Amino acid sequence: MGTVRNILFIMCDQLRYDYLGCTGHPGIRTPHIDALAKRGVNFSHTFVQAPVCGSSRMSFYTGRYVFSHGATYNGVPLNIGEQTLGDHLRRAGITTGLIGKTHMAPDRDNMGRLGISPTSNEGVLASQCGFEPWERDDGLHPDELTDPNLAYNRFLREQGYEGDNPWHTAANSGRDADGTLQSGWFLRNAHLAAEVKAEHSETAYMTNRAMEKVSDLGDQPWCLHLSYIKPHWPYMAPAPYHAMYGKQDILPANRTDAEKAAPHPVVQAFMAHEESRNFSDEAKRRHVIPAYMGLISEIDDNIGRLMAFLDQQGRLDDTLIVFTSDHGDYLGDHWLGEKELFHEESVRIPLIVVDPSAAADATRGTTDPRLVEAIDLVPTFTDYANLPDQPHLLEGRSLRPLIQGEDVPIWRSAVFSEVDYAWRGARLSLGLQPDQTRAYMVRSDQWKYISFDGFMPQLFDLQADPHEQQDLGVDPAYGTIREAFEAELSRWIRARKTRITVSHEQIEQKTDNARDRGIYFGVW
Amino acid sequence: MGTVRNILFIMCDQLRYDYLGCTGHPGIRTPHIDALAKRGVNFSHTFVQAPVCGSSRMSFYTGRYVFSHGATYNGVPLNIGEQTLGDHLRRAGITTGLIGKTHMAPDRDNMGRLGISPTSNEGVLASQCGFEPWERDDGLHPDELTDPNLAYNRFLREQGYEGDNPWHTAANSGRDADGTLQSGWFLRNAHLAAEVKAEHSETAYMTNRAMEKVSDLGDQPWCLHLSYIKPHWPYMAPAPYHAMYGKQDILPANRTDAEKAAPHPVVQAFMAHEESRNFSDEAKRRHVIPAYMGLISEIDDNIGRLMAFLDQQGRLDDTLIVFTSDHGDYLGDHWLGEKELFHEESVRIPLIVVDPSAAADATRGTTDPRLVEAIDLVPTFTDYANLPDQPHLLEGRSLRPLIQGEDVPIWRSAVFSEVDYAWRGARLSLGLQPDQTRAYMVRSDQWKYISFDGFMPQLFDLQADPHEQQDLGVDPAYGTIREAFEAELSRWIRARKTRITVSHEQIEQKTDNARDRGIYFGVW
Repeated sequence: MGTVRNILFIMCDQLRYDYLGCTGHPGIRTPHIDALAKRGVNFSHTFVQAPVCGSSRMSFYTGRYVFSHGATYNGVPLNIGEQTLGDHLRRAGITTGLIGKTHMAPDRDNMGRLGISPTSNEGVLASQCGFEPWERDDGLHPDELTDPNLAYNRFLREQGYEGDNPWHTAANSGRDADGTLQSGWFLRNAHLAAEVKAEHSETAYMTNRAMEKVSDLGDQPWCLHLSYIKPHWPYMAPAPYHAMYGKQDILPANRTDAEKAAPHPVVQAFMAHEESRNFSDEAKRRHVIPAYMGLISEIDDNIGRLMAFLDQQGRLDDTLIVFTSDHGDYLGDHWLGEKELFHEESVRIPLIVVDPSAAADATRGTTDPRLVEAIDLVPTFTDYANLPDQPHLLEGRSLRPLIQGEDVPIWRSAVFSEVDYAWRGARLSLGLQPDQTRAYMVRSDQWKYISFDGFMPQLFDLQADPHEQQDLGVDPAYGTIREAFEAELSRWIRARKTRITVSHEQIEQKTDNARDRGIYFGVW
Repeated sequence: MGTVRNILFIMCDQLRYDYLGCTGHPGIRTPHIDALAKRGVNFSHTFVQAPVCGSSRMSFYTGRYVFSHGATYNGVPLNIGEQTLGDHLRRAGITTGLIGKTHMAPDRDNMGRLGISPTSNEGVLASQCGFEPWERDDGLHPDELTDPNLAYNRFLREQGYEGDNPWHTAANSGRDADGTLQSGWFLRNAHLAAEVKAEHSETAYMTNRAMEKVSDLGDQPWCLHLSYIKPHWPYMAPAPYHAMYGKQDILPANRTDAEKAAPHPVVQAFMAHEESRNFSDEAKRRHVIPAYMGLISEIDDNIGRLMAFLDQQGRLDDTLIVFTSDHGDYLGDHWLGEKELFHEESVRIPLIVVDPSAAADATRGTTDPRLVEAIDLVPTFTDYANLPDQPHLLEGRSLRPLIQGEDVPIWRSAVFSEVDYAWRGARLSLGLQPDQTRAYMVRSDQWKYISFDGFMPQLFDLQADPHEQQDLGVDPAYGTIREAFEAELSRWIRARKTRITVSHEQIEQKTDNARDRGIYFGVW
């Protein structure tokens, strides 16, 4: 790996592209993340393979598109036959583990069929998306489902927070003016300070765990996936972050009356979801966004703590640092809440990569506008680890040549993202079956084309309409553009990589040489 | 399963559709297979998912299209995450095993990653395509590669055939006029009688093994996959089959000078293969085809023996019998040898199904011309076994309603087949990379459309030109037809089933009800 020996792969959850200082938010304070951007490359046009946690992450971790790996939504088990980042990096002797969230569901049916014990080393890795689960915590612990042994809850109790589920009652609840504890599950309570002290919050706790682990790993090369749950809901920040931002810091919603009046049928169905209706209420939106921003600044402070620690440990010199997110958050833009559709607010993410090696000096502090996909990270990491290319399996491209300022004469001309909304109310309101809910985005520098199974497409001209307020999906003037993008989409789907158990080298070795193995066919 | 308790799933290798009496060959003698057709349904328009052994079989056994399961050619490991027929039927208490060939390559890389011991029960099944390997024998044993412990070789030695590899020197070699042993690997020796007696041939041996196994299984419900290597090459039959047919029995080749003069580029590259050049020589073709026909009549006699045995055991009354093949054989038609392209000679197979239950009486002895795919067998078998539908996973349709004469108002309008010729000389002569070699067939009742990556398509009007001698792939008069089929192909590829770890029922159960699990998002 040259001077890069370790990989620190930091992921936030639901952090949209434009809510950092270094990505253009005028009001948010993220000095430590901004400092990362000054030391590395800020990839300004980075897109997730699916704008929803589980499927996006499975693409981050497998290096494959969503309908290639098949885990198309939260809770869909990742097929046992899919390899992940840890499987690759361990071949290079790199200890690869997790602190935080993956949203991975194990493929228990196939594990049972194959006799893989969930407690064997291999079974644990297969259940944990290939990461050693140094601390797995998906960050959502409703009282109904909480593991009584959750490590973070044990930690909170050790700090004096009582109850069966202090994740809820301390870290994600706050006291109102009457002193009554109110749940952070409800948007109306987003202005309250979490009962937990900032130093005991999930973000601080996971940061501490990461620092402990880095100390423990010593000189062993490692890849640490530090995967924060925040700024994902429940939207509730501890003091002082709960009050760090006010209404004056909130940007106007990106939405027009015209969008609401004549939406695409699928978008309309999403607009009818509860989260969309609530975030469409400007008062509610303004009530929640300060908490979202506070959670981001809290992460930023913890990134600062973490970087100071790495500096003190000497790890800044030999560690590739990646900072990114699994998808965005509409926050009321386009009359929508949450994510799952393809507007930039949902599908575009921050991506900052700091390569400490001298080879990357030329790009330090630059912004790279080339189109990047989440699936580029696995090939980037295996490239830094000097592992062979795997073009039969990995569907992304290594960013290392971009980071190290090499001449890259041809780069991709479009990025792709996929959605499967079978689990959402929109499916029911549209009267669809579970296999009629796929949608695809093809985005070039200028255009965003969205193709829904069974519905008209959407089209946006990002040059003329960067805020995606004017859907050209049925405008007769753009028929040629739409046809070109539909053809590109078909071409791309057709080239999906499914022949994943044999490498190109193995094919070359066995091409047209059956005779060498004693197999004569058609020989007179 | 009603009165159907067992499944006898007989497959031949390389038996093309039209080389049986009951499928229209005027000269071949196959009375026992014809008798099956009289007792069951003769599906006259059945197509393989790939016209090559390994990938076709992986579709037969998984119930999934070739680029869905990903084992796109001989020797490509079937991904460990793919379930097979045995995995399904065992859930219904049906012992499912193999005698003969599967051409399955185990996914050793993933087995190693997952800690699956190849000798554990689960590891054996995962290595044997989900079949209990009662006797695995892929039927091709060049001296260079032969397992010294091959059971059929042990059997031959017990019968007095000597040598290291009597599979070659006895079962697939014959003596010429000088008494010199000549190898069946070479087409020029196809007229010789195999050194082996018919009663010791591979076909007879496997039939014996099947009868022994059926006896052993007693009252245990079973699915036995009896998978003959013949009439696959080496083209060499034991006496009397080697001399059963002569030049007078050979049909004229289906080929025209025009086809040879202006072929499609990919077809042209295949025409240049050695097997195509040899089968294009009419003298050589006439030299080989009698052996091919003899091997078929030998199978037929063994089917007769097997049916008499089942009758005597009382098994004809409770056993669903399927007779089919994994693909065809060009035998010089269209100036081609072997298979791997999409003409009917290669891609169309016989399929006869005998359902002994009274429910099937109405269709007994009928020919059903509806379009059937190889992937229909897994859902057919699971349907007979009263297992639930698995539309998230299986890409075929149960034939049971057709077999039992139920009203099926809508059936498929096209069948699909796929090829990956990365391993063939054609790739090299065309200058292609290993990921530029996919081709697809869409065949309706009237049309056959073939789409090659990177090349013009082919189109045949099967009504006007049933012998596929006139390629309309670039004829301007058929542009609309080609566009319609290309669109149908894109639609089909887009609907490929890759979300295979979660059922539709599981999706329905979790649709739009996060609140029930205590997860509140976007709730005020």
